Amino acid sequence: MTVQDPILRPSGRRAVLIDGKAAAEGLDQAARAGALELTQTLGRPPCLAVVLAGEDPASQVYVRNKVRRTESAGMISVEHRLPASVSQDELLALIGRLNIDPVVDGILVQLPLPAGLDAQTVVQAIDPAKDVDGLTAASAGALVLGAPGLRPCTPAGCVYLARQALGDLTGRHVVVIGRSILVGKPAALLFLDADCTVSLAHSRTRDLPALARQADILIAAAGRPGMVKADWIRPGATVIDVGINRVARPDGSSALTGDADYEAALDIADFITPVPGGVGPMTIAMLLINTVRACARRAGLAIPASVAGTGAG
Amino acid sequence: MTVQDPILRPSGRRAVLIDGKAAAEGLDQAARAGALELTQTLGRPPCLAVVLAGEDPASQVYVRNKVRRTESAGMISVEHRLPASVSQDELLALIGRLNIDPVVDGILVQLPLPAGLDAQTVVQAIDPAKDVDGLTAASAGALVLGAPGLRPCTPAGCVYLARQALGDLTGRHVVVIGRSILVGKPAALLFLDADCTVSLAHSRTRDLPALARQADILIAAAGRPGMVKADWIRPGATVIDVGINRVARPDGSSALTGDADYEAALDIADFITPVPGGVGPMTIAMLLINTVRACARRAGLAIPASVAGTGAG
Repeated sequence: MTVQDPILRPSGRRAVLIDGKAAAEGLDQAARAGALELTQTLGRPPCLAVVLAGEDPASQVYVRNKVRRTESAGMISVEHRLPASVSQDELLALIGRLNIDPVVDGILVQLPLPAGLDAQTVVQAIDPAKDVDGLTAASAGALVLGAPGLRPCTPAGCVYLARQALGDLTGRHVVVIGRSILVGKPAALLFLDADCTVSLAHSRTRDLPALARQADILIAAAGRPGMVKADWIRPGATVIDVGINRVARPDGSSALTGDADYEAALDIADFITPVPGGVGPMTIAMLLINTVRACARRAGLAIPASVAGTGAG
Repeated sequence: MTVQDPILRPSGRRAVLIDGKAAAEGLDQAARAGALELTQTLGRPPCLAVVLAGEDPASQVYVRNKVRRTESAGMISVEHRLPASVSQDELLALIGRLNIDPVVDGILVQLPLPAGLDAQTVVQAIDPAKDVDGLTAASAGALVLGAPGLRPCTPAGCVYLARQALGDLTGRHVVVIGRSILVGKPAALLFLDADCTVSLAHSRTRDLPALARQADILIAAAGRPGMVKADWIRPGATVIDVGINRVARPDGSSALTGDADYEAALDIADFITPVPGGVGPMTIAMLLINTVRACARRAGLAIPASVAGTGAG
């Protein structure tokens, strides 16, 4: 792996950028190859069902992107749009129908759900074999036990990008800032599976800067813009920034920014993911990979070779 | 909490011993009070089914102890002894019957199983509502997600002993040595739930002594006798030693020893668990607590107050 690799590019300063957009395109291609192989074997393409309740504009953009990329990877995407007034029982009934639908391989419920609906109840109703977001208790348990299962997309994307930059991760010290069930905890478990030493830090951690400075790989997943300062980063470290924060500019416009002080980090880290264009694009890429994996497993087939090495589970 | 507390006692040197035997007796009493309360409400005591396959002498001792302590806590213990020649299908059929038996609240399969039987398949067949060892994927997933569930007994015992010695654990740095699915990983997640900063180290960790020296609470769970040397321990730290290793003495007899160099650690740590008599007795105590919890949950009752505060999940 060198700077010439398509997913790494010089930043013009010390750190080399890990290009999540290019990495995601590579994964999309791997998913497409896997989907083609399964289509030929099964006589039908893998199929992802996307459930969107309500009219949240950001959710609509996300769902549109997921549908577009699923279809351009040669898979079927079925969108289920429900009004914000949908009842929990109606939503659960839909999940139940998708669970038993033989041609649905993956089920994704776009979060957040409208007020009055309990996301945990809805997500936990998904058949673990179709849990392409990796958010059910069964998927989390399989991750702890090292058993086969579908891994959460964003954390799997973090491990993938770290591997692209550094190769084998054995023995590296990963410090994860943030202990959410969507990112922090599963990221810690996935890096542990990659034979890393893992420290999990959070708002109650004492002397967080000192702990962060020990990291060979620093995962910033606290959702606090610019929280990780220059002196939190060990010279030569790899910074994977999971934060996507919208902050106001002085001129009244807004910009996306990560959890790290990016400009300062460029002078200290060896590798860093930009925001946007770092971890962000990996989430949908891993969703496509998971859909291919779920389709193969449900059919009792081997995971297609193009997808097997992508580290999603 | 002072040195006068029944579960702490002076060692005659610097470290104060955390008396796991006394702590376990206290938990057994809490389980007994909870079992009595449930017996009065339900008209029957909580019931633990213990499955023992084969003739392993150590397993027979463990099972005898579990049965004895279950019964002296006022609960019913039903022992299922099977020959070493039992088939996997017969064992799974027994688990299936116990799963649907309405008066069985907890199911424990004594490990290791005889050759030819797959422990993971058998354990994963247990109804998560009756998984008093906390070893199913569903229980592990609930632990990750912070959802209600039954927590693994030995790790829950470690947290309990650390709380007895130190009180509130918020912000303490816990270093767990060993990443097994029985102890290391669930211990890390349980200490995280207690608002600790958690580092998980293992055989691939670089400079393990330096990481261990950062620990406010050091969990030694690698299964390597005397691995944790004096200079791995920060002065004033709490050492929780999960190792139970049988080592040969010069005179040909054998002794139980932990993963820490106990004599040396006494001069450095503030609190330490002896081996035997530290973590060991906690495992069965937490099993009894879990059986009471499982019984209450299955009946749709509140967890008895005597048991609710014991930190098992």
